[in-house]
Amino acid sequence: MLSLARVTDSAWLPQAVERLDEILVDHAHCEKKAAGMAVQLIFRYTQHSFLHEPLSRLAREELAHFEQVLEHLRRRGVEFRALRPGPYAGRLKQAVRGTEPERLLDTLLCSALIEARSCERFGLLAEGVPDPKLAAFYQSLLASEARHHRIYVDLAKRLAPDARVRARLDELAAIEASALSESGERVRMHS
Amino acid sequence: MLSLARVTDSAWLPQAVERLDEILVDHAHCEKKAAGMAVQLIFRYTQHSFLHEPLSRLAREELAHFEQVLEHLRRRGVEFRALRPGPYAGRLKQAVRGTEPERLLDTLLCSALIEARSCERFGLLAEGVPDPKLAAFYQSLLASEARHHRIYVDLAKRLAPDARVRARLDELAAIEASALSESGERVRMHS
Repeated sequence: MLSLARVTDSAWLPQAVERLDEILVDHAHCEKKAAGMAVQLIFRYTQHSFLHEPLSRLAREELAHFEQVLEHLRRRGVEFRALRPGPYAGRLKQAVRGTEPERLLDTLLCSALIEARSCERFGLLAEGVPDPKLAAFYQSLLASEARHHRIYVDLAKRLAPDARVRARLDELAAIEASALSESGERVRMHS
Repeated sequence: MLSLARVTDSAWLPQAVERLDEILVDHAHCEKKAAGMAVQLIFRYTQHSFLHEPLSRLAREELAHFEQVLEHLRRRGVEFRALRPGPYAGRLKQAVRGTEPERLLDTLLCSALIEARSCERFGLLAEGVPDPKLAAFYQSLLASEARHHRIYVDLAKRLAPDARVRARLDELAAIEASALSESGERVRMHS
């Protein structure tokens, strides 16, 4: 349902739990970047009014999640700080075609895949982290990430026939899955 | 209280009412840009954690207002479209000093002044527009714009002593007031 080409490797969760505070800082950056991307799309595509309201609502939700992650960081005594990102987002960006409407289509589908991967990872963290408040938080995020995934796929379907969207989503999903394995030693929400 | 150096010229309201749909499109852009600026500051200043939560909340409110303006445009049968901006934002940006922490201080104070001017203009529109739903909407925005003004000034006070913030706010308020008169024929929320 979430369009992912590959499930997360079983080695990820124990690594993430071991470096949970770093994962949480990375998670804050992810929520911020998700909001930033949605706002950027509203700016870039004034002519596509079908994007504005759903992406504005989505950006508001991501910002609310950002604030919640900051609150969990504070509770755990961890400072929000700059973090060297993994190669994941850059790899997906490389896959986005340069001409319109392909550029927008690909950007929407990449965002859909990022949301899908976040959803899968939150499910793993909800089961695996020892901090019960954090586990409950991850559980609470599952539904909204799945919903965001669908919103992005549905917006993409405004630009191209369903079959073409599905085919491109499969191509990008393969790139997304391979981007995960390029992170080296860094443990990230998307590594 | 709102730190403005000059009240709006009495010629503005009749012009705005005459071109209300254009003002409403411009208003949508203003809410979008206000959200974009707050998000940009969160991205730019990872090290200043005192900014993150208040600016994230503020961005969410601006996005909610953006959605409300889009709804009023829809109700009035007006399409959201690109609009040639006035010189206002550019003039304020020119006044922002290039080195830190002055750059952040000035940016926060310019944002405070933009919110203050919006607040004043919404007050005028609430009294002057013939569409009762729109008048009620402008009235509903007054309090939040005044609150946003205070948030920005309070954040600036984290960077410099009160007297220095007040002195710089007065300087920038003079620039803000003069920027209003440079708009030529265009009628804008900030013209």
